Formats: sequence, structure tokens, C-alpha cells
Amino acid sequence: MERNDWEERYSQRSRWMTSSIIREILKFAQQPDIISLAGGWPDAALFPVKEMDEIVHDALMHNPGPTLQYGVTEGYKPFRGALAELMSERGISIDEDNLLVTSGAQQALDLVGRLLIDPGDTILVEKPTYLGAIQAWRAYGAQFVTIDLDDDGMCTDQLEDILREHQPKFIYALPNFHNPAGVTMSLERRKQLVTLANSYSITIVEDDPYGQLRYEGDHIPPLVALDAAGNNGPGEKYLRGNVIYAGTFSKILAPGLRLGWICAPPDAARRLVMAKQGTDLHTSTLSQAIAYGFCQRGLLPGQVQRILDTYRLRRDAMLEALAEYFPPGVRWTRPEGGLFLWVMLPDGFDSVELLQETLKKERVAFVPGTAFYTDGSGHDTLRLTFASSPPEVVKQGVKRLGRAIANHTPK
Amino acid sequence: MERNDWEERYSQRSRWMTSSIIREILKFAQQPDIISLAGGWPDAALFPVKEMDEIVHDALMHNPGPTLQYGVTEGYKPFRGALAELMSERGISIDEDNLLVTSGAQQALDLVGRLLIDPGDTILVEKPTYLGAIQAWRAYGAQFVTIDLDDDGMCTDQLEDILREHQPKFIYALPNFHNPAGVTMSLERRKQLVTLANSYSITIVEDDPYGQLRYEGDHIPPLVALDAAGNNGPGEKYLRGNVIYAGTFSKILAPGLRLGWICAPPDAARRLVMAKQGTDLHTSTLSQAIAYGFCQRGLLPGQVQRILDTYRLRRDAMLEALAEYFPPGVRWTRPEGGLFLWVMLPDGFDSVELLQETLKKERVAFVPGTAFYTDGSGHDTLRLTFASSPPEVVKQGVKRLGRAIANHTPK
Repeated sequence: MERNDWEERYSQRSRWMTSSIIREILKFAQQPDIISLAGGWPDAALFPVKEMDEIVHDALMHNPGPTLQYGVTEGYKPFRGALAELMSERGISIDEDNLLVTSGAQQALDLVGRLLIDPGDTILVEKPTYLGAIQAWRAYGAQFVTIDLDDDGMCTDQLEDILREHQPKFIYALPNFHNPAGVTMSLERRKQLVTLANSYSITIVEDDPYGQLRYEGDHIPPLVALDAAGNNGPGEKYLRGNVIYAGTFSKILAPGLRLGWICAPPDAARRLVMAKQGTDLHTSTLSQAIAYGFCQRGLLPGQVQRILDTYRLRRDAMLEALAEYFPPGVRWTRPEGGLFLWVMLPDGFDSVELLQETLKKERVAFVPGTAFYTDGSGHDTLRLTFASSPPEVVKQGVKRLGRAIANHTPK
Repeated sequence: MERNDWEERYSQRSRWMTSSIIREILKFAQQPDIISLAGGWPDAALFPVKEMDEIVHDALMHNPGPTLQYGVTEGYKPFRGALAELMSERGISIDEDNLLVTSGAQQALDLVGRLLIDPGDTILVEKPTYLGAIQAWRAYGAQFVTIDLDDDGMCTDQLEDILREHQPKFIYALPNFHNPAGVTMSLERRKQLVTLANSYSITIVEDDPYGQLRYEGDHIPPLVALDAAGNNGPGEKYLRGNVIYAGTFSKILAPGLRLGWICAPPDAARRLVMAKQGTDLHTSTLSQAIAYGFCQRGLLPGQVQRILDTYRLRRDAMLEALAEYFPPGVRWTRPEGGLFLWVMLPDGFDSVELLQETLKKERVAFVPGTAFYTDGSGHDTLRLTFASSPPEVVKQGVKRLGRAIANHTPK
């Protein structure tokens, strides 16, 4: 009996789901002779395996219960304490009620969608924006409107008109070292954004995976800190405000742990915990124990410094190589941190077409920009990462890509 | 400025979400002088910490990439290979396309809801049923109809009428050592269920967290194996069929790893992978590496045997104590495996009321049965676990609970 009637069984929601084009490309990009400037993968050579091994050993021998047993949905309490300290270094005074631990920042985005989005709701995103957020929120039936980005981040001068016209359910912002654009939002614009969200009572979802990876200049306070300062008394924790902040250990420790967190006003945090409970009960207690061990032993600053020292050289190598090898008419951003840099090709270029050619002839991979646009535009853009390979390889990759661009004739 | 306008921002979906009463009780039950017969927690003393420590050490030193880096959504390929072998021991021939790794079996339930449920859809569940499933699927707007359970599991003689009348989107079944009821579905009824689901083209969601924990009698094939045999040629893998099977390492290794899997026909499996991608990208690669290490080193059978030897004695202790200490008029099930046993109190009893009294006067915790009913009934039932404490403590707990029941005067 031949039968395949599953198609009729799927929910409407499942028809909104898409697979990420990046993940498909990455499968190809893992072939050994390809130089990949595509994925946002940290360099595995920087994973602190020795420290982790010791921490796991200690946790298993001396604290097996909290390390391996069922835990509470909001996360291991001492670990949430450590996260509160970590957030205080980022400029905001909170306590454990403001926090929940998530299975990576991707889950934070999913839970936000679950909590806030009804089918047909409009979400305001930057143009371009992180494709994992688009993917997460499309599954909840979200529609998108966009706001432009320039070298100072979100163009907040457009914001009030958009809020009035579209009344979005929330604003999604990546203020630090934007993925994919590589730009950073200025302090002034952050203040404008927070003030406007406050006057319109609109939620901001702040995604900050790369904030600690700053290679030059001073840290700028996250939106959540500015918002908390405006809505709460001095010394008061984050009781009132409009920001849901998502952090992660993927870029400062290891992505395979799937460990992130949400910081939000207590009522929203409590509701997010409820949303998470039905989803996966709680995040791996072993992953929590490892990150907690890092915090407790004071190992995070050293680990971040190692990453900074390594990635800064790679960024510099990529910027040098771009200046040397890219043909005239191509422009790119100059990131002060993070993993990514954004390339704008001359008119008429299609980066998907270019990628196919580049993979074949030059054995270099990148991510076509169109994946980061909610409206199908962005064909003449692409995203490069400098973080995954040593400086010489980054340079070699840019050289090959520059050659491919120079030799490419748009159809 | 005092403001709390978050309430208006939440989605309709979030209003369907509830927190689990069990989790609230468990918080209380963790006080040190309470004997908890409540949670479904494995005994932490059985966690194989030494083996895990060695496996983690090896994985970090010799294989840091796959252990800590981003991975594919469907799960680490060699690990899925090991899972296919594990499923073949359970009587079904599959390959990696039938499998995805999940963040615990709870995520399997969530992804199933995401894939299959439109708001207003009807799901057929056993009465009583696992409350985590109710919680997961309510969030997708599911309605429930129920089918009775007896000592041979789901009363399949009622099934055809219910399928005709309610046309449920899927049937949720826990055939082995039911949570909460402790009963096991007979082979004959399994065959009936699979046959009917096939004729009506209805999906079965088979939840099998305890299948390996059988203390007496022979293993009975899971629904997925019976379904595969009926729908596919000899030697053919599971290409056609109606069952989505959820397994987990929570009870045979450690729940804190949050590690489970789904086995399904390839098309459904592929859609579930897509559903998972937007949710959390993938499950902890470290957790996968640990379970894979256990499979590869052939350590699972020994670990399961240790658990069996321990829990069998506890089950026997509980059954003895129930016979000795419980007053006449109380009935209970006799589980052949798993963690749970189901108690039916005399008419007029309310187990929530009883629990409040028991916690105060006798310092014993259990789970009131009503949590496992979708229609608010079941007030005269409760769930006990025998797995969490040594035999003497189990006996002591039952003795105290028996005293509480004997002294309890229903309001």
C-alpha cells in the first residue's frame, strides 16, 4: 500500500516554516578545500576545553544533582545570580526575577514570538536583519515592516512615522556589531529608540550576542540599561520597562552548549518561563553548570580577551585584504566588533548567482544578503565573517572572492 | 511613572499557557524532611558520573569540534546512527532520515504540536494522561477528548466510535508503564490501535520514556514497530506509516542532559527538523556527545540493568507497603515497569485537599490526580512514584500516607 497523506495533516503554522538558506550553504561550505567566510561559527580552536574539562569533572564529582537532575524552568538559581552580575557589568541592576535561562539565544527569540505574536501581527525589523529571527517569528504568523540601517545603526529618524503607521507589536534591534550588517548603533540613537518605545508603549526585543566582542572604542550601554534607568528609581531593579534583552554564551564560550538568557521586567520574564516550560521543561543543567563554573572561577574575562585578541587580527586582515583585492565599485562596512562585515556589490549583481560561481571556481563561501531581507530584496549584498579562519586564510578568501567579483558579469 | 501595560501585549496563545501544578508542588517537596513520592525524578545516586566524566574528557580532548561547535538541527549524524541501532533493538528498522534529536521528550511533544495542531483541533488522549503533553498542546490551541484506561492500557474497544465522532488530529498514547497510571497496553490492543489509526489515516503520537525500565515480563513491541511492519515491505525501513515515536535519555541516563529523539516517517521527520530549527537551532552537542559515548562504548545495557535492579526493589517495597498500610477501599495499579503507580481513593475524597493535610501533618508529598485530567475530573486519584527513594523510605512514606488517608474525613 503506497500512501503519503501526511501533507494534509500539517498545521497552518507549519506552512509558514522555512529552512534556513544559510544552513543549506553551510553543509556545502564544510567541504575541506573551501574557504568559508559564510557561517557565524566561532573558531573551535578557541574553545576553552581544558577549563571545561576541569569544571565538568568538579561538577560531576561534587555536585551531581544540580548538574544532571531535572531543574527549574527559569534556570539554576546560583547561575541566574551570576547572570545578574554579568548584566550589572553591562550597566543594569536586576535580580533573578528578571532572568530566565534559555537554550541559546535562538530559543529566546522563539519564546518572545510565542509570548507576543498573534498571526498577522506586524514586527518592525532592521533592513537587513538576523535571518534566525525572521525564521522564528514567521512560524507564529508575523508580518514584517523594516527600518533602514546606516553606519550608526538603525535610522531612528524614520522610527516615529513607522510606529504611527504600522503600530508594530514590537521592535527588533541588534545594536552591537549587527548581524549581518556589522554596524553599531550610536548612543544617541539608542536613547531615541528607547524614548520612542516608551512613549508608544511598544516592546523592544534587544538581541546582543556579540556585545562583549568589541575590538576598538568604548562599550555603549545596551537598550535595556537605558530603558531601566528611565523607568525605575535609582538603585531600583528593573521593575518597569519595555525591553526584552537576549544574551548568549555561544560566542564567548561555545555554541554547542546551547546556552543563552533573557533579561526582562519580572512580569514578562515570568510569562516567558511559562512559555518555556511546555517547550523543553528547562535548559541542560550540565550546560548551565559549565557556564556557572566559568563565571564563579572568574574565567570569563580571560576567555573573552583571548577571543578579542584573535578576532581583532582577523578583522584587520579582512579589512586590509578588502582594500587590496576588491574591485572598485564595491563597498563594505567597518565593524568595531562582532563577527561580520557587510558587502554592497555594484548595481546589477546577484549574490546568489555570484555564490554559485564562486563556490565552483574559487572555492570560497559567503552568505548571500537576500537571506537577511524580509521583502526578498538585497540581491546585491552579501555577508562575510572574518572570525572563523586565521588571518592568512581570511586574506586568501577575500583575494579569491575579489577575483570572482572582478570577473563576474551580471546576467 | 508607574506602568504595567504588558498584560495587553501578550498573544492569545500565551493565554492558553499554564504552569504545571507538579512543578509548584515539587518546589515544596524539596524541603529536606519531606518524603517525596511526587516527582518523576530518577535517583541521582544512579547517575553514571564516572563514565560521563571519562566520556566528556575524551570528547573535549579528541573531538572538541563536534562536542562544542554549532551542529546540524537533526542531530549529530553518528549519534543518529546509534539511535537507529537502539530503535532496531526496539523492533523497527530505520535509518537517519527517520530521526531527529530533541531537547528532551518534552520538546518532541512541543514540536509535534507545532507541526500538527491548528487552534481548535481535537486531540485524543488517555484518561488520565501525561500533564506535560496537555501543557504543550494547550499552547497551540488544542481541545481534548479522552479514552478510558484499564489494567491493559487504552480501552481500544471505545476507539472507533471516538474516531468517527470527533475526528481527532492525532491519538496520544503512552503504551509502556503509563504516566501517571502505571499500566501497560497489551499487544492485542496495540495492534487494534495501529490498525484503526491506519484505516482512518490518523497519526499516533507514541510517548515511550520508560520502555526500557521493565521489572518483570517480556517487552512488547512499540506501536511504531507494529505500524512499520504493517505499512512497509520486509527489510524496508520506515518509509510509510502513521506513528511519531518519542524516546528519551532522561530515565536511562540523566534528565539534566535534556536529550530525547523522534522517530517518524521521513517526510514528517523532515518537517519536524524544520520546526525545530527556528526553535533552538539544535540540541546541545555536548549532551549528544555524552549519550553517543555511552552507546559507542556499550555502556547503556549495564546502566539500564543497574537502574532496573534498584527500582525493582523499590516498586516491590511500595506494593508491599500499600498492602500493609493502606486502609480498605483504596485501590492501586500494579506497574510492571516505569516509575509510577496510580491510587484510586474512596468516593468523596479530594486528593488536593488530602495533599495539603498530608504535607502538613505527615510530611509526605504526592501528585494529585486531577493534574492528569483534561476535563478537571480525577479528584479521587493520585500518583505515587517509587523510584526516587530507597525501599525503607518508600515504605515509610506509604505508611504515613496510609495513616493520612485513614484519618482523613472528606469535606
